[in-house]
Amino acid sequence: MPTLLLNKNTVKELLDMSEVIEAVEQAFRDWVEGRGRMPPKSYILLEKGDFRAMPAALPGAVGIKWVSVHPQNPSRGLPTVMATLVINDPDTGYPLAIMDGTDITAYRTGATAAVASRYLARKGSRSLGIIGAGRQAYTQIEAHVKLFDLREIRAFDLSKASVERLIKAFPGYPVEESSLEKAAGSDIVCTVTPARWPFVKREWIAPGVHINAIGADAPGKEELEPSVLNGAVVVVDDLEQSRTSGEINVPVSKGLFSMKEVYGTLGEIISGRKPGRRDDKAITVFDSTGVAIEDIAVAQVIYEKAKHRGGCPSMNLIE
Amino acid sequence: MPTLLLNKNTVKELLDMSEVIEAVEQAFRDWVEGRGRMPPKSYILLEKGDFRAMPAALPGAVGIKWVSVHPQNPSRGLPTVMATLVINDPDTGYPLAIMDGTDITAYRTGATAAVASRYLARKGSRSLGIIGAGRQAYTQIEAHVKLFDLREIRAFDLSKASVERLIKAFPGYPVEESSLEKAAGSDIVCTVTPARWPFVKREWIAPGVHINAIGADAPGKEELEPSVLNGAVVVVDDLEQSRTSGEINVPVSKGLFSMKEVYGTLGEIISGRKPGRRDDKAITVFDSTGVAIEDIAVAQVIYEKAKHRGGCPSMNLIE
Repeated sequence: MPTLLLNKNTVKELLDMSEVIEAVEQAFRDWVEGRGRMPPKSYILLEKGDFRAMPAALPGAVGIKWVSVHPQNPSRGLPTVMATLVINDPDTGYPLAIMDGTDITAYRTGATAAVASRYLARKGSRSLGIIGAGRQAYTQIEAHVKLFDLREIRAFDLSKASVERLIKAFPGYPVEESSLEKAAGSDIVCTVTPARWPFVKREWIAPGVHINAIGADAPGKEELEPSVLNGAVVVVDDLEQSRTSGEINVPVSKGLFSMKEVYGTLGEIISGRKPGRRDDKAITVFDSTGVAIEDIAVAQVIYEKAKHRGGCPSMNLIE
Repeated sequence: MPTLLLNKNTVKELLDMSEVIEAVEQAFRDWVEGRGRMPPKSYILLEKGDFRAMPAALPGAVGIKWVSVHPQNPSRGLPTVMATLVINDPDTGYPLAIMDGTDITAYRTGATAAVASRYLARKGSRSLGIIGAGRQAYTQIEAHVKLFDLREIRAFDLSKASVERLIKAFPGYPVEESSLEKAAGSDIVCTVTPARWPFVKREWIAPGVHINAIGADAPGKEELEPSVLNGAVVVVDDLEQSRTSGEINVPVSKGLFSMKEVYGTLGEIISGRKPGRRDDKAITVFDSTGVAIEDIAVAQVIYEKAKHRGGCPSMNLIE
């Protein structure tokens, strides 16, 4: 029985944002309803970077993402984040596929934010603010245009060149360069920066705005003034991860925000255990740290597509 | 930069027991002296089997073993245990090699037991008792014959056919069928069964014997009467894993053995922090649960050999 080997190009070809959105939404539903398994991420911190082991199981799927983050890589011509995914048969353990996980990570992050927007943003949202025009900005736009009829996509970055690249990548979409303040004034705001200080000011955020806070994914990182969180409907992907490494980690550690103020998890909202947005004037915030069920759900879709398409390289790993 | 793909056959060809013994011994030394990293194993328990994520780093090496255990597999023509290993560049995270980890697991388990015997068995040990003639028996013998001048290898199993296969696999070695009692009366005893009851009796164990207790690797499993442990020099590979899932887990949970009675870890003994055997009359027990540093150390050796030999299949996973 051969194990499929799917490199970055093959995975990219097989990724379809609409399918990814449905897969991550179902993964959160399965998880909160007890049909998934996800032990905590484990970390190995080394001198030049770190490694994270992210195993998870969902109905009919089990696997692991092994992902590394090395900030000095770009100077060596390598991406900062690299990931390898293994998908196994839950009934036998057989490794069904080994695939590059870099684009899966970017797609599932964009898709999860868009799913959060689906439940938390106002129905008639027409403008999207993208703060930070790096790698993650692309999939935020790709995912949100699937679910919203956007008239304006306002992109801000400290690097003008990054904004120009982003605009060029979306011909036919209303992406435009924006000030930070104007981007933060959009109906839906996605913060996708590596910031370690709360540069998004409370005064810029209008009533009714939904914010996807994506950038903070490690202790000490934050993007929003803590006062944005106070009084907002704050939804997290994983309570423990958000507390220790998400957008809320610094405010919680400083006593400026309490875990009791968290409204709920994305899974609870998707499954209907807690209602999503009920008030057009509320500010909603989704604190995304990234969880393994998202990766395994998407990798399983890619594996099934690769198997049915045929012609992918494979090897007999076990025999 | 291509990622090497090493299937079971290639890994088997490159495995050399003497090299594996040196690699695992060095890994324990590195770990106890603070040069390694190893988060706890994480488990996913599913209906028909379980999965374990085992990441670790050592000087110049980092990676993960993703291993599954499915007891019903043999009826489907598949091995119970299957493992996939990924080895990365610590400085960039790049996946250097993906390899089958099944034989690496068996070799490193045999090698680690033999290293324990090197420090804990009497110098003049001449007889080896093998209790359980399954897969793990082979590498126990292979590793011990590298370090001891054995005159008798006494194999016991409930299945006569298994013992006969084992004897046939070692022509030129003094492997013979034995009673359980006689095997347990050897200078060095390796218990490699899936038992869940303490079938090795205290009265069979002579003064001066060293026991490698390998089989118990999950809560509820044990092979030795708890009275074997009381008064013995008990050495573990990992304190926490042994407490929860090693040979000592049942006696500890029943209050028949206390963690305070553990003499130390294999790493402490290898590094000289604690002396090994000092008394020819002492009974010594090594409680082996299996730790990721063993796998990563061996996988790194296999990767280096495959790279230098050349000609192995590879793929551009990332590009």
